[in-house]
Amino acid sequence: MEDYIAALTEGRILMGAGPSDVHPGVLRALGMPIIGHLDPELFEIVNHTKDLLAKTFETANDFTIPIAGTGTAAMEAALINFIEPGDKVLICVSGLFGERMVDIAQRCGGDVEVLEAEWGKIIEPSDVERALSKRPAKVVSIVHAETSTGVLQPIKPIADIAHKHGAILVVDAVTSLAGAPVRVDETGIDVCFSAAQKCLSCPPGLAPITVGARAMEILEARKTKLHSLYLDLKALHDRWGHHRFYHHTAPVNMLYGLYEGLKILHDEGLEASFQRHELGGKALRSGLEAMGLSLFAQEAYRSPMITTVWIPDGVDDVRVRKHLMDNYRLEISPGLGSFKGKIWRVGLMGRSCARENVMLFLTALEEALIAEGFSPEQGAGIAGAREVYAR
Amino acid sequence: MEDYIAALTEGRILMGAGPSDVHPGVLRALGMPIIGHLDPELFEIVNHTKDLLAKTFETANDFTIPIAGTGTAAMEAALINFIEPGDKVLICVSGLFGERMVDIAQRCGGDVEVLEAEWGKIIEPSDVERALSKRPAKVVSIVHAETSTGVLQPIKPIADIAHKHGAILVVDAVTSLAGAPVRVDETGIDVCFSAAQKCLSCPPGLAPITVGARAMEILEARKTKLHSLYLDLKALHDRWGHHRFYHHTAPVNMLYGLYEGLKILHDEGLEASFQRHELGGKALRSGLEAMGLSLFAQEAYRSPMITTVWIPDGVDDVRVRKHLMDNYRLEISPGLGSFKGKIWRVGLMGRSCARENVMLFLTALEEALIAEGFSPEQGAGIAGAREVYAR
Repeated sequence: MEDYIAALTEGRILMGAGPSDVHPGVLRALGMPIIGHLDPELFEIVNHTKDLLAKTFETANDFTIPIAGTGTAAMEAALINFIEPGDKVLICVSGLFGERMVDIAQRCGGDVEVLEAEWGKIIEPSDVERALSKRPAKVVSIVHAETSTGVLQPIKPIADIAHKHGAILVVDAVTSLAGAPVRVDETGIDVCFSAAQKCLSCPPGLAPITVGARAMEILEARKTKLHSLYLDLKALHDRWGHHRFYHHTAPVNMLYGLYEGLKILHDEGLEASFQRHELGGKALRSGLEAMGLSLFAQEAYRSPMITTVWIPDGVDDVRVRKHLMDNYRLEISPGLGSFKGKIWRVGLMGRSCARENVMLFLTALEEALIAEGFSPEQGAGIAGAREVYAR
Repeated sequence: MEDYIAALTEGRILMGAGPSDVHPGVLRALGMPIIGHLDPELFEIVNHTKDLLAKTFETANDFTIPIAGTGTAAMEAALINFIEPGDKVLICVSGLFGERMVDIAQRCGGDVEVLEAEWGKIIEPSDVERALSKRPAKVVSIVHAETSTGVLQPIKPIADIAHKHGAILVVDAVTSLAGAPVRVDETGIDVCFSAAQKCLSCPPGLAPITVGARAMEILEARKTKLHSLYLDLKALHDRWGHHRFYHHTAPVNMLYGLYEGLKILHDEGLEASFQRHELGGKALRSGLEAMGLSLFAQEAYRSPMITTVWIPDGVDDVRVRKHLMDNYRLEISPGLGSFKGKIWRVGLMGRSCARENVMLFLTALEEALIAEGFSPEQGAGIAGAREVYAR
């Protein structure tokens, strides 16, 4: 049988919507010998992982754990545990992941109101205020950095409005955690979740979640039994808390990787990581605009982690991405939904957010666009990015 | 911060209820560079993984995939997708994992009848016949190898009875897959699930499942929307099938590991693996009995993968397990529920099922028992096991 794994040594430059590149230290950690899932040494690693996660979310929440699944599992856990059948829920939707939250909240019986904004735009706090004034909700949910649009949503005003109306706020920080300030406690986020494979530079398969005091009260007061055992946060709280009774077999090697990735993150420093992402995003946008391309996301709300850019008329989405992959092993992501073939999504997350990646991508993209008959001024992209780095 | 990961180089000899030891080839695979979750090369790996899983389940089912979660996630998926609120379900319970199926089936609204047998005994087919004659069910569910009791349940008679009464059969093969014949198609199992960390010798975090034609019909005919998006098999079928649309970010590095583990398994050969487990279990039981210990599970139905043995009077469970861990880095598992402190569970699964482990464990156990004041005849355990290997 062909040795597909050996062939992977080439790797990729992952500048898509995620996963992002994984640090060699994390890869090494993944491959360490397994120990039992109830081994005292694993509890040491798990306890430190919980502490590092809380530090990353910037929260004092005791209940801060990695869910044994991908970001979608954490999104599901973050919603279904706090919604009982018939509960009123307000979901802010301005992209695919907002839509997905609606799907999840409806499946578990929530009485869902959808507050929509155009893809590429933020949700206006005044619209949330108006919606909750008309129809109060128990849970309000919103995406911090929409991976589908590249918009970075201000959360603090939404949190204040939600609390004023007696709701808890659930925030999807899948793409933002460690890339841009989430600051769970300062912002007043009640439930926040993320995923390992974006700015944490770990492989997909684990998804951090943190639950604050107001949300814990709802959990404790729940009257109907949760449909899911696997994603039952009360059971997981017992499992990861002091009781340590068996709930599921913890994904041992993945936990090694997450622990190592978090250690590397905090060796750099959280604020330093934010600044690196901020700078990378600016340089990339500057380069793209210098090449004559137009950015998709609403100005002033552009996410450093995912840059969305319109594909110029006459340029073929698939051919360009194929050029980048075939010649540079460089991955970027297509648009989603009705924006497929119309925009690209370029990720600069975690380890992928490096100056060499910004420069290489702009060089490779220039080449691919010339092949498509779109002629940017030679070297303009590079120059545009360099200007930002030189400041 | 302390380097907990580097300290793991010592590893363990994992002879507990799982995870079992992971092959170095699998550890290497886990640490290979990440590629995108929609990368064509990952689809190659995924397609071969699906084929190898089908070969392992011995099924022609097209829908055979790894669930992005642990065995509990697969158990939940295997039940909730086929049970609509009010549906009649018969669950056979003779251990902890049967009880867990009851919990899951009740949470999703199933009208559950529980057919119980004493822990350590099999479920008698005649009892299933009687139960279904009185009250037909849509779904019958049973555990093949109960990790909590070490019993290996004959499945074929149960499958025949379930089908006679128009039910589908869901089987938990978490501990048995690749260790003892499961033979999904020959046996007539409609939905079968397992986990990566037992006889497949991969780390926990992925859980194979296979769905047969009768069960697919139920899936297609489902009237109510499933509460879970993450474990929605219809959506997963589209994701892993020919549509390949986005459902969740596949756990890339874990998939490398599973692929490699399955390749190693089939290089040995499935039948050879069954024989190795059969022999290992026999040798271990022979050794334990030669030492004067009594086995827990019903004779003739003892699982080769998990051997359960009564702790002799006056011997301290925790002290003995600590002796094994402190002096041999060797892990065995305690009893569960009311058998905690009364039995041990000794796993011989996948790579852990090796002659050197059987011999080392018997030696170490003899030592620990002597320290407890229980005096087996010197070398009796080793001799008992050696006799089996010499045949």
